[in-house]
Amino acid sequence: MERYCRQVFYYETDKMSIVHNANYLRIFEEARLFFMEQAGIPYPVIEEAGILIPVVDAYVRYHQTMKYGDEFYVDVQLTEFNGARMKYIYEIHRKGDEALIASGFSSHCFIDEIKRLPLNVKRRLPEAYEKMIAALSEE
Amino acid sequence: MERYCRQVFYYETDKMSIVHNANYLRIFEEARLFFMEQAGIPYPVIEEAGILIPVVDAYVRYHQTMKYGDEFYVDVQLTEFNGARMKYIYEIHRKGDEALIASGFSSHCFIDEIKRLPLNVKRRLPEAYEKMIAALSEE
Amino acid sequence: MERYCRQVFYYETDKMSIVHNANYLRIFEEARLFFMEQAGIPYPVIEEAGILIPVVDAYVRYHQTMKYGDEFYVDVQLTEFNGARMKYIYEIHRKGDEALIASGFSSHCFIDEIKRLPLNVKRRLPEAYEKMIAALSEE
Amino acid sequence: MERYCRQVFYYETDKMSIVHNANYLRIFEEARLFFMEQAGIPYPVIEEAGILIPVVDAYVRYHQTMKYGDEFYVDVQLTEFNGARMKYIYEIHRKGDEALIASGFSSHCFIDEIKRLPLNVKRRLPEAYEKMIAALSEE
Repeated sequence: MERYCRQVFYYETDKMSIVHNANYLRIFEEARLFFMEQAGIPYPVIEEAGILIPVVDAYVRYHQTMKYGDEFYVDVQLTEFNGARMKYIYEIHRKGDEALIASGFSSHCFIDEIKRLPLNVKRRLPEAYEKMIAALSEE
Repeated sequence: MERYCRQVFYYETDKMSIVHNANYLRIFEEARLFFMEQAGIPYPVIEEAGILIPVVDAYVRYHQTMKYGDEFYVDVQLTEFNGARMKYIYEIHRKGDEALIASGFSSHCFIDEIKRLPLNVKRRLPEAYEKMIAALSEE
Repeated sequence: MERYCRQVFYYETDKMSIVHNANYLRIFEEARLFFMEQAGIPYPVIEEAGILIPVVDAYVRYHQTMKYGDEFYVDVQLTEFNGARMKYIYEIHRKGDEALIASGFSSHCFIDEIKRLPLNVKRRLPEAYEKMIAALSEE
Repeated sequence: MERYCRQVFYYETDKMSIVHNANYLRIFEEARLFFMEQAGIPYPVIEEAGILIPVVDAYVRYHQTMKYGDEFYVDVQLTEFNGARMKYIYEIHRKGDEALIASGFSSHCFIDEIKRLPLNVKRRLPEAYEKMIAALSEE
């Protein structure tokens, strides 16, 4: 699977001259949606099936800082998935010195767009279910 | 009418230690929606009527900079409104030294949420139309 | 102590029509800096003493969603502080139905702005140290 | 010169399900800094020389909307540059249908990082001056 990577944008920095802490949840999201696309389950397909995937909880550990222009990549693993819930873990490294910048996780559930109630992907979108199972991290 | 005012948030600053330029369009929006609420036309009421108000164009002139903790107020005027389109002008001043920080404008149209086609507020939501006319800047 | 409260901004929502998950770390920051100001230690004073307070880790649990226009307040507690590190816990409630929207925590350390090395506030800024100790949650 | 292009991020959309208007100033910035890098004047080099380039004014015209997942490219032209000021114009097109999404401009000046006073790049950073002149749009 391809790794998600890009450069830090200028507007992502704050007056400490480093990427603002809240932006890491955005980067996690970018990497997660990229992962799903790579796994054959692009998010627009999910949404067309009337499914939303809100975040249940999220955690970030900040190991080092990044500044404007730094290039980074994100390693994503889908560690849990049962059709009703899923969990991802993330590691962001800077390109070049390979420093670990941030790590963390996010948990998600699946809900119906209209009723806003939990649903099981196995029933609603079986092909997506199979692909998610296949994308599960083995360890 | 009450003036919209608040403090600069830390995360609005960038590595120049000043409020990032893109945030001024957000501040214009905050002040515009506050203006509409003050004028008796809260935006949720507009949206419940199936109306969206996208931006057609927007301009910002940056006179001075703001840093974290600065307090500012925004003067908003509705300078044009005909039921199909409207235009606002803005002036942001810092509290204390009263310095002019930024000025600008934004133009908007009204569209149907579903069809995404232009509509006239006079027909769709006559009470809102009357209140907007009343809120028009005289000059 | 006064509670931090404000309304959801339109631009904080995403295409699920709810406040985007990353914005909660921003709201935590707003509330944390407000808490420090209330406790007599405004952040600009900290920065003038050459101290930065980066985030070490942060966690958010999303209990319910908020939409544009919702009013909320944030309860902040400083649960740990020893001059070198500190930890805050947060609870965001919606005004009106008093629903618990999100909870979480953030840990921080103190570093020297120039050297970017850990420092102890007790030595660098004793008055701030005393005020932080006084602001510590009792339980 | 290479064109700046990327996909719309999920968090760039708002509750209208389209990219929020303020994000276009961010996209202009991304494209502008990419342009400078391509022209041999990466922004970090500018900053290391103690130069900041604040925005003087900016304008966006919104022709069509973009949604999550849309791919777009930005055409940037440096239309004015005299060492003290510069102006860029932008056009954002969606990949695929090639629709014009947004156009606009931004003007900038050069200031000294410490004194926060205007400076002329020709004297401060002659090589950058030459490269900017070379990057000027001919028309």
